[in-house]
Amino acid sequence: MHKFMRFVRIFALGVAGAMTLPIALYPQAPAEEAPKLSSELTATLEKLRDAALSSDYAWRQVAHLTENIGPRRSGSPQAEAAVSFVADELRRLGLDVKLEKVVVPHQVRGEERAELTAYPGQAAGTTQKIVLTALGNSAATPAEGLTADVVVVDNFDELNALGREKVSGRIVLFNEKFDKRMAAAGRGGAAYEEAVIYRSRGSRAAKALGAIAALVRSVGGADYRLPHTGFSAAAAIPAAAVTAEDAELIAHLAQQGRVAMHLVLTPKTLPDASSYNVIADLKGREHPEQVVIVSGHLDSWDLGTGAIDDAAGVAVAMETAQLCKKLGLTPRRTLRVIAWMDEENGGAGSKAYMADYKDAMANHAGAIESDLGAGHPLGFVGIFNPSAEALLRSVTRVLAPISADLVENTGEAAADVDPMGSTGVPAFGLMQDERTYFNYHHTAADTLDKIDPRELAENAAAMAVLGYAMADMPQTLPRSAGSK
Amino acid sequence: MHKFMRFVRIFALGVAGAMTLPIALYPQAPAEEAPKLSSELTATLEKLRDAALSSDYAWRQVAHLTENIGPRRSGSPQAEAAVSFVADELRRLGLDVKLEKVVVPHQVRGEERAELTAYPGQAAGTTQKIVLTALGNSAATPAEGLTADVVVVDNFDELNALGREKVSGRIVLFNEKFDKRMAAAGRGGAAYEEAVIYRSRGSRAAKALGAIAALVRSVGGADYRLPHTGFSAAAAIPAAAVTAEDAELIAHLAQQGRVAMHLVLTPKTLPDASSYNVIADLKGREHPEQVVIVSGHLDSWDLGTGAIDDAAGVAVAMETAQLCKKLGLTPRRTLRVIAWMDEENGGAGSKAYMADYKDAMANHAGAIESDLGAGHPLGFVGIFNPSAEALLRSVTRVLAPISADLVENTGEAAADVDPMGSTGVPAFGLMQDERTYFNYHHTAADTLDKIDPRELAENAAAMAVLGYAMADMPQTLPRSAGSK
Repeated sequence: MHKFMRFVRIFALGVAGAMTLPIALYPQAPAEEAPKLSSELTATLEKLRDAALSSDYAWRQVAHLTENIGPRRSGSPQAEAAVSFVADELRRLGLDVKLEKVVVPHQVRGEERAELTAYPGQAAGTTQKIVLTALGNSAATPAEGLTADVVVVDNFDELNALGREKVSGRIVLFNEKFDKRMAAAGRGGAAYEEAVIYRSRGSRAAKALGAIAALVRSVGGADYRLPHTGFSAAAAIPAAAVTAEDAELIAHLAQQGRVAMHLVLTPKTLPDASSYNVIADLKGREHPEQVVIVSGHLDSWDLGTGAIDDAAGVAVAMETAQLCKKLGLTPRRTLRVIAWMDEENGGAGSKAYMADYKDAMANHAGAIESDLGAGHPLGFVGIFNPSAEALLRSVTRVLAPISADLVENTGEAAADVDPMGSTGVPAFGLMQDERTYFNYHHTAADTLDKIDPRELAENAAAMAVLGYAMADMPQTLPRSAGSK
Repeated sequence: MHKFMRFVRIFALGVAGAMTLPIALYPQAPAEEAPKLSSELTATLEKLRDAALSSDYAWRQVAHLTENIGPRRSGSPQAEAAVSFVADELRRLGLDVKLEKVVVPHQVRGEERAELTAYPGQAAGTTQKIVLTALGNSAATPAEGLTADVVVVDNFDELNALGREKVSGRIVLFNEKFDKRMAAAGRGGAAYEEAVIYRSRGSRAAKALGAIAALVRSVGGADYRLPHTGFSAAAAIPAAAVTAEDAELIAHLAQQGRVAMHLVLTPKTLPDASSYNVIADLKGREHPEQVVIVSGHLDSWDLGTGAIDDAAGVAVAMETAQLCKKLGLTPRRTLRVIAWMDEENGGAGSKAYMADYKDAMANHAGAIESDLGAGHPLGFVGIFNPSAEALLRSVTRVLAPISADLVENTGEAAADVDPMGSTGVPAFGLMQDERTYFNYHHTAADTLDKIDPRELAENAAAMAVLGYAMADMPQTLPRSAGSK
């Protein structure tokens, strides 16, 4: 996930929330009449749960996507191979598969290296190597690179205080630190939101004052000299993430005196490419026109192999369909597996779906995406009508034996289904244990070994239980007020 | 540290130990007459300890060596800058400084990249990137690289079972896993010993069967797609360490079918270079001809900045001298600070010292090196006469308030002082908490931030207390039988 908009959204929801109706005015069933699942549906969900826990199907899909196909950046041949693979697999399960066209940005990583060429205490004939990686939408330096002095700022205020005179012609380093304490406390997402604005908007702010390149301290929690790439808003200057260690080095040296850097960053921005969302329907037996989505995103960043971000999400969504077929279950409504394209580079897949299915939104009875890794699932976050909470809890009770039964109405679900949530569709994100997620997120270390097969199966169980419940319960969940 | 010989040595000591005199026959003072330090010396050691704990001198030396000078591989301009820096610093403290000439190997890292070009499930037009780094003494591939099939083995037996027919013309990957459980249990060194033989001797074994390149799974405990470099015995074929993740990827794909790799590895082996051990004496007030060594090694690998391996060791040795000067202390014997050269690439510095000072060994009253990082010190390991143990414990009792008072007669101290220990000189290594040491060891992530200033000061306290005690106690410690 990239969560570029998360900060903005949460802020907006905070303001909007204060202006909307008091929660007590929402229609809610009295406590003594809390809706219950039928014992038959409960038994089916328990069967799905147990089948998910003993299945290695999701694991095999992740292994193929990451190890046989590899990184799946939007527009890459691997992304296209992944589309074919997932479509073929879902067809093989007997689903009705469509490829929905999505026009995606297409950037190819080039050379990327940097070294400090002048700094206090420098020994004759030496430089200090800097480890970095280009951000999405980075412009390229000349092939031979560029050399300039580096200015270090901790935030936008410090940048603006320097002003054009001290920024123009320089390389700006945003040195905002990812708060590892928050991550350790289970609030990695919040720590990410605090820091990621410098990655997403830093290069534009630097460019506005005449900077010729922008660097950001990697947004993540690890200490292994790993650069974390990610989306940045195009600013027509080279933009890269340096590792936490390199940010410290540059900041320390800059405190002592002048620091100059030679920077080579040659990503190629190619014409937009045609790609696809994979959309696969298991037709509903009573209301085939009503749709419940289970999903993950198929594209990934290109440094690692995109295992936790987000082959895992796609695989657990595929597992829901596989289990239904294996157990001979056909829900009342259509269960739709979606492998989204381009979550990382702007969300073109989600946007295309919202445009293509605009008129069908009223028939979307629910949507789930898993995009916070493959750690042990704790339950669900989402955007839903508070009156649905009791019924949701009666569903997730089935997940209590694996401690995955939390339900939190946080006002956000996951990037690709949030737009649906905004229109009133009950939208959910799997809530994983994210304490180590941001150590690996968007790095070369996002690889298959970061996934515990048991935890992946637990995620599959969670996805299957909530997805099937929404698709099969007699009534749909009430729609929320949305955010519009 | 490289510990190339550690496995061999421990094995040898095990055999030798079984053949030597029962421990009870060693001369030992009866328990009731256990030697005690004078209260005056004890008070002095306590002063040194407390001064070390409140000093930032060692920290500033590590910061300069790592951030202002940088990686210090044998033969590099940074290694020479480090020699000058340390010599100047020790002269400034008033020590008598000599540079002892050492002829060192000189290799410069070149291009290093690899990709899988054929493997099961490969999508058209794609490859899988492999993260690796050249080992010391690696030969170079042609500039355009080489391409060959990869054979994966877990150990030498598997390699030999394949035989020349299946190895010749191939790239061999040794996939022996570093045992993270042992590291977590505080026995990282033992885990290292088990795995490092494939790094140090694998390329020779592969070459013997006609392999054209050798890869080893990185010997270390981290999971952040970090290659760990290190010494390998020259074998005239390219030799590199792949990350644990990449070793897994290759092994998984090789289980499924044929795997081919394109490998570019272009280190340059230059003529041997002149370098130096820095030797700085604080002359003894009674027996200036008797010497006690406090030391660390000044060279490092070139991927990181050599903070924990081993700028920290040099810095805590320098701190012992600084504290003596600051507190106006002149011990009975000469306290000798040594910053060793070339510990990592063959130990030329230690060998030169043993050659140049061969006739002075009888006057060496003790030697300490810190080369297991800068984690919290637990005490000392060493090669010493068991009859010295009680006296040593009366010394380390001063370190009990910082929980650094263990003394273990393990038969090894640290790489640069072990040869002295073998001749009977009481030789010691600081025993640090090494649970995370092998996560960073020989990687790009061995940087200043891995050192906790408080723990570094504790190491300085430990070095100063044992170093000064051996230099100032009325009698020298009894010599050991050595290993000859």
